Amino acid sequence: MHERIYLDWNATTPLRPQARQAMVAAWDLRGNPSSVHAEGRQARGVVEQARAIVAEAVGTKPRNVVFTSGGTEANALALTPELGKAGAFVLQRLAVSAIEHPSVLTGGRFGRGAITKIGVSRSGVIELGLLRRALNGYPPTLVSIMAANNETGALQPIREAAEIVHQAGGLLHVDAIQAFGRIPFNINELGVDLATLSAHKIGGPKGVGALVLADRVEGIDPLLCGGGQEFGRRAGTENVAGISGFGAAASAAMTAREADAQRLERLRTRLETGLKETPETIIFCDNVARLPNTTLFTIPGLRAETAVIGFDLEGIAVSSGSACSSGKVQPSHVLEAMGFGPQLAQGAVRLSLGWSTSEADIESCLEAWRKLANTLLKRQRNTA
Amino acid sequence: MHERIYLDWNATTPLRPQARQAMVAAWDLRGNPSSVHAEGRQARGVVEQARAIVAEAVGTKPRNVVFTSGGTEANALALTPELGKAGAFVLQRLAVSAIEHPSVLTGGRFGRGAITKIGVSRSGVIELGLLRRALNGYPPTLVSIMAANNETGALQPIREAAEIVHQAGGLLHVDAIQAFGRIPFNINELGVDLATLSAHKIGGPKGVGALVLADRVEGIDPLLCGGGQEFGRRAGTENVAGISGFGAAASAAMTAREADAQRLERLRTRLETGLKETPETIIFCDNVARLPNTTLFTIPGLRAETAVIGFDLEGIAVSSGSACSSGKVQPSHVLEAMGFGPQLAQGAVRLSLGWSTSEADIESCLEAWRKLANTLLKRQRNTA
Repeated sequence: MHERIYLDWNATTPLRPQARQAMVAAWDLRGNPSSVHAEGRQARGVVEQARAIVAEAVGTKPRNVVFTSGGTEANALALTPELGKAGAFVLQRLAVSAIEHPSVLTGGRFGRGAITKIGVSRSGVIELGLLRRALNGYPPTLVSIMAANNETGALQPIREAAEIVHQAGGLLHVDAIQAFGRIPFNINELGVDLATLSAHKIGGPKGVGALVLADRVEGIDPLLCGGGQEFGRRAGTENVAGISGFGAAASAAMTAREADAQRLERLRTRLETGLKETPETIIFCDNVARLPNTTLFTIPGLRAETAVIGFDLEGIAVSSGSACSSGKVQPSHVLEAMGFGPQLAQGAVRLSLGWSTSEADIESCLEAWRKLANTLLKRQRNTA
Repeated sequence: MHERIYLDWNATTPLRPQARQAMVAAWDLRGNPSSVHAEGRQARGVVEQARAIVAEAVGTKPRNVVFTSGGTEANALALTPELGKAGAFVLQRLAVSAIEHPSVLTGGRFGRGAITKIGVSRSGVIELGLLRRALNGYPPTLVSIMAANNETGALQPIREAAEIVHQAGGLLHVDAIQAFGRIPFNINELGVDLATLSAHKIGGPKGVGALVLADRVEGIDPLLCGGGQEFGRRAGTENVAGISGFGAAASAAMTAREADAQRLERLRTRLETGLKETPETIIFCDNVARLPNTTLFTIPGLRAETAVIGFDLEGIAVSSGSACSSGKVQPSHVLEAMGFGPQLAQGAVRLSLGWSTSEADIESCLEAWRKLANTLLKRQRNTA
């Protein structure tokens, strides 16, 4: 049998060697970046080096990067009515796309009543007409739209959305966790005001992320207070090693991005061609632009949990929707928002590919799937 | 010249070898603890093992431990009006000792107007009479008192405070970051309802901490939402490696605690005897029970910043007050609360010792100090 195959790349991204090295080196520094002695200054240097790398990767200046404990904290920090220096922007409403990550859907520091959801098309892309309608005639609104969906991989029209949001006097937050390091993402070119990044999706450590701010929203109402770290925007001793690993991973990801994307897209095409050999197969969002590494698919009647366990026993790690909600498999809120019923929304399997994925991995996956699909479909027909 | 000497142990604690090993092993796991496949289950196992170690170290059950990104986040999570399952406790007021860490002084999710400060004695210990007065006749209050102060090392009367707080129908939060791993700290024996821990002060990684809850306050209003992690009390992908390193460090710290404490207390006595050879020396809180590893001292007219830089140039890392506020040396709010004027409060130097501190380190420090004190005092007399 083959070695373990990782086609749940999103939830099993390995730590890049560059990130490992950076983290081990940071461990040896000992210092707390707030200390004035040599050890403190060295630790500060490591954090600032990583900040410069992450800033450059999204096209902004270091001062605009706020390191956090991950994407969830960055989203919670971003979604606040008070933004900009000395509260230059006060936004009473929050509008989020219906396919956002739960940490965005819960609305951060906005009250339940202040949150509006914006629908998406059957292809999993936000409807710009609905966005316009949700903003026109309302007071300035903070809008949150992810750059690429974590379940389907569908890319969202960020540039167009930014124009609409700004015309209505609002600000745009973009959860770029899936996009960062996989497709070009420059906050100034796109007109993004706040962007969430996560280290572990690009081969950095778990437990580190960042909120990146546009120049004009430099200030933000902090979530963690009681210390001047991160220019007063996030108190608490910095995760020096983790931040250093994030920087190293970002640097490596940016270097490899284009070549990786081309290779993964080719592998994915092979994968999807194989999956479609089972006639009933549905591949979600395959008629729109997607991340190069993600396939979400099902066959009617499939139970995702059974499929994940079946793949697992065949030595292949795959996922049912996003990892965050997959402890218990519930209908995907993303597929429901796209108009699919609970049956299909509960049956989707996500395959995500990464830099170590090989053609042999894809062939092994297809072989396992033919076996599983046969068994599962047979069982279905018998019980029907 | 001697090798670099670390007498700012608090801000330069090295990562314990056991923590390194645990973290490197966790890196190899790849999985996200929320995934159902083998990799996910392994990552989950690592997190739960660390949870069991940390829980045992403070005398409670694993379920009561909520891992966070550090002490500041744990304090922010703890200080909320809604505590207990389904909001069993609703506390409208917060009372904090005047010598708390800034992340407690800012009051978490309590409004400015709901926060009361409780004074301390000239010896840096909370006045229980003032605590009683701050609670009697008021609605139930959340009280926050640190187990040991981070600048002076002075231990606080937690058991007695817990009795007073409970008699008044309130709950007691204890910032135990300095105490954990250095002196016995069992939340049930002490009657503590919520306790904050930090990994890096005991030789774990920076960027990891925990909030520990008593059985009856199991529920808590989460600060980060949008995921079921940490039993619904803290959303976001777990810092698997960091948590594993925290567990390993806690285990090592508990094993070494008693022997370390005895050795460090001996070294500190030698250190303070040497410091007192300069007649004007003031050692803060030396008439009350303190952590075994901490000395805060000054001589009238000393500027802490000058002393820290002087020591740094002599190859010795020391601190002025706490690292968190030492980017710019401001008067210590702890010494001010103890009744010392801004002159003395700006001049205090903290020496903190740890497991690798040797007798030779102490002698080198004293030698450097004699030189520095001579120069600094001479300069003072000249300018007087």
